[in-house]
Amino acid sequence: AAYKLLLLPGDGIGPEIMAEAEKLVAFLSAAGVAAFETEKGLVGGAAYDAHGVAISEGDMALAQSADAVLLAAVGGPKWDGVPYDVRPEAGLLRLRKDLGLFANLRPAICYPALVDASSLKPDLVDGLDIMIVRELTGGVYFGEPKEITDLGNGQKRGVDTQVYETYEIERIARVAFELARKRSNRVTSSEKSNVMKSGLLWREVVTALHARDYSDVKLDHMLADSLGMQLVRRPKQFDVIVTDNLFGDLLSDVASMLTGSLGMLPSASLGGEDAATGKRKALYEPVHGSAPDIAGKGLANPIAMIGSVVMALRYSFGLTAVADAVDKAIADVLAAGLRTADIAAGGATVSTSEMGDAILAELKKT
Amino acid sequence: AAYKLLLLPGDGIGPEIMAEAEKLVAFLSAAGVAAFETEKGLVGGAAYDAHGVAISEGDMALAQSADAVLLAAVGGPKWDGVPYDVRPEAGLLRLRKDLGLFANLRPAICYPALVDASSLKPDLVDGLDIMIVRELTGGVYFGEPKEITDLGNGQKRGVDTQVYETYEIERIARVAFELARKRSNRVTSSEKSNVMKSGLLWREVVTALHARDYSDVKLDHMLADSLGMQLVRRPKQFDVIVTDNLFGDLLSDVASMLTGSLGMLPSASLGGEDAATGKRKALYEPVHGSAPDIAGKGLANPIAMIGSVVMALRYSFGLTAVADAVDKAIADVLAAGLRTADIAAGGATVSTSEMGDAILAELKKT
Ligand SMILES: CC(C)[C@H](C(=O)O)[C@@H](O)C(=O)O
Ligand SMILES: CC(C)[C@H](C(=O)O)[C@@H](O)C(=O)O
Repeated sequence: AAYKLLLLPGDGIGPEIMAEAEKLVAFLSAAGVAAFETEKGLVGGAAYDAHGVAISEGDMALAQSADAVLLAAVGGPKWDGVPYDVRPEAGLLRLRKDLGLFANLRPAICYPALVDASSLKPDLVDGLDIMIVRELTGGVYFGEPKEITDLGNGQKRGVDTQVYETYEIERIARVAFELARKRSNRVTSSEKSNVMKSGLLWREVVTALHARDYSDVKLDHMLADSLGMQLVRRPKQFDVIVTDNLFGDLLSDVASMLTGSLGMLPSASLGGEDAATGKRKALYEPVHGSAPDIAGKGLANPIAMIGSVVMALRYSFGLTAVADAVDKAIADVLAAGLRTADIAAGGATVSTSEMGDAILAELKKT
Repeated sequence: AAYKLLLLPGDGIGPEIMAEAEKLVAFLSAAGVAAFETEKGLVGGAAYDAHGVAISEGDMALAQSADAVLLAAVGGPKWDGVPYDVRPEAGLLRLRKDLGLFANLRPAICYPALVDASSLKPDLVDGLDIMIVRELTGGVYFGEPKEITDLGNGQKRGVDTQVYETYEIERIARVAFELARKRSNRVTSSEKSNVMKSGLLWREVVTALHARDYSDVKLDHMLADSLGMQLVRRPKQFDVIVTDNLFGDLLSDVASMLTGSLGMLPSASLGGEDAATGKRKALYEPVHGSAPDIAGKGLANPIAMIGSVVMALRYSFGLTAVADAVDKAIADVLAAGLRTADIAAGGATVSTSEMGDAILAELKKT
C-alpha cells in the first residue's frame, strides 16, 4: 500500500518551498522507490483565512491518518491581531499535542560548503554536527493554569505552568540515548535544576534511566544558561543534547544559527510507537520560519524543506539508501557552487525552484 | 556618614577576586574619594559549611542595612548533594528576593583589546555594547506552586509556575526605557508571547507603557528564540534588551560569551527607590561563576569583580567621575597588554593580584 503524506504548506514562503518537496516526492513515486499518496491541507494563517481556525477538524483528521505530515512554516504579521486561540502557531501546537509528537529532533549541522557563512570563526564550526532532542508536548507550552486574570485596579496577572512527569522525561531521554548510540555515544542533558523543581526532577529521572538502561552512553548534565554559553564558546564539544520544550526552543535556535546554515536545517517531530502496529506518528518541518518578507519572490532556500522529506524517508519509512542519495545530491549541488540568496554571501544566486530542480537533476544521475 | 558596603566573597574564586575589590575600596577611602565602611559575610557553600544555611539571618540583616552589597560568586561541586533549600544558589536567590532587587543590569561589552578572544568574527563584535535588563524577582524563579509531588507507581510530577503581574512588568520596563534614553534610545522587549500568557501580558504592558510615557524611545518586540538567533547573527543591532527572569538568565549568558570578555563583565541588581529616603537597595556581582576548577590558584580574572565596584560607584553612589577613572584604568592596563589566563590566548599572563595591583597603580596616576 502507498504511504500517505499530508502536505501543509502554511504561510509565507511555505507554499514555494513545499512545491520543491512535492517535486521530490513525485519523482520518488515515479521512480518506483516507494509509492506515496499525497493530500494537502491548510495550517496557520492560511487556515485562519479559509476557516477562521489555525487548523480545521478535517485537516486534523487527515493528519491523524497520514503516515507522515510535511509542514513548511506558519505565521506572519498579517495575523498579528487575530485572537490568541486561533493564531497561526496554534495550528502547529495542536498538531504536536494531538498527534503526541513528543520528540523533536533538530540537527544542527554545518555544511562544509558553508563554513564561512557562520558568524563563528571557521575552525569552531567546521564539521559541527549536533543533534538537539527537544521535548515537544509538555512543559510550559501546555501546562495548566495558563491564563491572564484581571485583578482590578488596572492590574492583571499572567500565569504559565511548567509541568513534567517522570514518564515524559523518561521517554524523551530514551530517544536521546538511542540516537547517541548511533552517533558519538554522548548525551548532554540540560535544565535549570538549580532554580526549577521540574528541572530537578528532569535531572533525577535522566540520571536514573541512564544508570538503569544506558550506562554505556556518556552522560553529562549542564545548566541551560551554561549550555547557551558553551554553544557559543565551543559548539563541537556536543553530540546529542536533550532538553525540555522551552529550553529546546531557544537553544536549538541558537545552535542552528551557529551553523550558518539556517535555511538548510530540517527537523523531525515523532510520537511513540503504537503498540499494535509498531507505527509512530511523525511531522517533518524546516527549523526556519515563514519569512514573510521574502515570500512569493522565489528567493527562499528549499533545502530545509527537502531535508525534511529526507528525514521522513529515514525516520518514517526506513528508506536509508534513498535518504543518503538525496543528502548527497544536496551536498553535490552546494559543492558545485549553487546558492540561494540566504547563503550566497553576495555571490551569484539561483531561485527556489532552480535549487529544487538542480537537486532533483543531481539525484536522477544516481 | 560613611557608605556601608557588605562584602560576600562566597565560594570558589570568590575570595581571591573579592580581595582585589577590597584593595580598590580601601584605596578610594584612603584617597578621600568617599568614606566606605566594609563588613564581611558568608553566602553560598561557605555559609552552608559554617551555618548549615545558604545565608545566615545575621548576614541577611547586614545586607538589609548596607548601602550596597558586593558578591563574588557562589556554588561548586562540593555542595552538589546538599538539600535543595540550602544549596549555594538559595543564598543568592534569597538576597535578590528579600532585598527586592527586581532590576538586573547586565552589560555585554566587547573590550577593544579583546576583540579576537570572541568566538565570533571580529567585525561582528568590535564595538559591541548591549545592556540586558533582566527582571530578577519574579517569573518562574519564584512563582508558586513550585514542587515535586509523588504520584505513586514510580511517577513524580515536577511543577514550576511562571507568574507576572502588571506592576512587575511596568517597573522593569521603566528601568529599560530610562537606560535607553541615556544610550542609543532603543529597547528590544523579548518574551514568548506566541506560547505563553505571561509573555502576552508582558508584551501588552510594555507596549502600553511605551505609548504612555516613552514614545520617544524606539521599541521593538522580538520572540526570545529569535533573539537568541539574532544575538549570534548580528549582535550589534541591539542597544537595551528587556526580558524576564528566565530568558534573561539564558540570553545574558549567551550575550556575555559573545563578547569574549566573560571574565570582565559585572552586573548590578537594583531595587526600587524608597519613597522616604530616595535610596535603593543594590547588589553588585560578576556575571561569571565561581570557577571551582581554578580556585585558589591565583588564575582568576578580577576585572568583573572590580567592574562590579565601578557599577556600585555609578548606580549606588553617583560617583560618576571616579567610576570613569577606574574604567579607564582597566582599559589602559588591558591596552598595555596585561592578561590573566582567561584572556591571554596563550600569551604571557599575570595573576589575579597582579592584575588588581596594576589597575590600582594605573588609577593612582590619575
Ligand atoms: C512557532 C512557535 C510556536 C514554535 C515554538 O515555540 O515551538 C517555533 O518557535 C518552533 O521552535 O518550532
Ligand atoms: C546561580 C543561579 C541561581 C543564577 C540564576 O539562575 O539566576 C545565575 O545563573 C545567574 O544568572 O545569576
